[in-house]
Amino acid sequence: MHPFRKHLEKFIKVDDKLFDEIISYFKIEVVKKKENLLEEGQLCRHHYFVLEGLLRKFYINEKGTEQTTEFAIETWWITDNIAYEHKLPTEFYIQAVEKSRILYISQDNQEKLMKAFPEMERYFRFVYQRAYAAAQMRIKYLFSLSKEEFYFELLRKHPEFVQRVPQYLIASFLGFTPEYLSEIRRRIVS
Amino acid sequence: MHPFRKHLEKFIKVDDKLFDEIISYFKIEVVKKKENLLEEGQLCRHHYFVLEGLLRKFYINEKGTEQTTEFAIETWWITDNIAYEHKLPTEFYIQAVEKSRILYISQDNQEKLMKAFPEMERYFRFVYQRAYAAAQMRIKYLFSLSKEEFYFELLRKHPEFVQRVPQYLIASFLGFTPEYLSEIRRRIVS
Repeated sequence: MHPFRKHLEKFIKVDDKLFDEIISYFKIEVVKKKENLLEEGQLCRHHYFVLEGLLRKFYINEKGTEQTTEFAIETWWITDNIAYEHKLPTEFYIQAVEKSRILYISQDNQEKLMKAFPEMERYFRFVYQRAYAAAQMRIKYLFSLSKEEFYFELLRKHPEFVQRVPQYLIASFLGFTPEYLSEIRRRIVS
Repeated sequence: MHPFRKHLEKFIKVDDKLFDEIISYFKIEVVKKKENLLEEGQLCRHHYFVLEGLLRKFYINEKGTEQTTEFAIETWWITDNIAYEHKLPTEFYIQAVEKSRILYISQDNQEKLMKAFPEMERYFRFVYQRAYAAAQMRIKYLFSLSKEEFYFELLRKHPEFVQRVPQYLIASFLGFTPEYLSEIRRRIVS
């Protein structure tokens, strides 16, 4: 089954005819490793759904360092939501960490899709509700856990994720230097 | 016009009959200043909409200090979303900062409401979409701004908010001590 249909069916009923209509609002793109789907200063026109692969979102901070704020693996949505909703230039980059196959939709098309199919309002309501809940948890962690504790939390809850993402990007997500992350990892081993 | 109806009409069409049906899924509560709507360890059963007043969400950190993670003023929704969706015990408190009038709904009733009225799927899709976008921005600020810079950002974007919320709670939101916040404020004046 199409991975997007499988994801839809977690939340709403979808038959062949409906799926064909829904998918016609989307386009597919294959991006190479390290290729950017979105760059700072561009209008943020699309909402991305990962069919296969791994994306990350980052911005370049005052020191010129890439600060990763989000990852998206298979069946995750990603965009700069404020810029997307209001069709504004973004402060972020969205980049492929691995070669990826991406389904994407424009803001106008997403609006049309939800107007045409109330099921899709329901689907996106779930998508945003869960993303919001996860972001709230992330905010709590940013206050309550040290960077080091957050790394252990990540290891404990998502070992396959820590395995899959290159270490320098895990460091960029945590706000570590790669050297400091290596040091922590050495400490675990010993 | 009822403030909740006014908020609904920003996103969906509502006539008198529909509003009467929608509002029948909700209850109203008046909470006194410093009264808790939710406490750590309780099942999180409700989603709260502020008709009048001001709520905050906080948890008690390792040091025994209250860390405020969120405020909600008029027309804002607030709850512990993960605990609410999965009917779990919460790690948070939700407390009235001012005497407040609150509309609230149970998780079961919110589900029924969205099933009965597809417009309400659309409404909550907007609510979660915007809340998620705001949370993403908050995460970016937590990485990119110092606590001091975040305070100035708050002052610049939401002066009426900084005016309204007691200073020790602004401090609790920023992760300052109240003394440090006073110091910054003195520096601005001079």
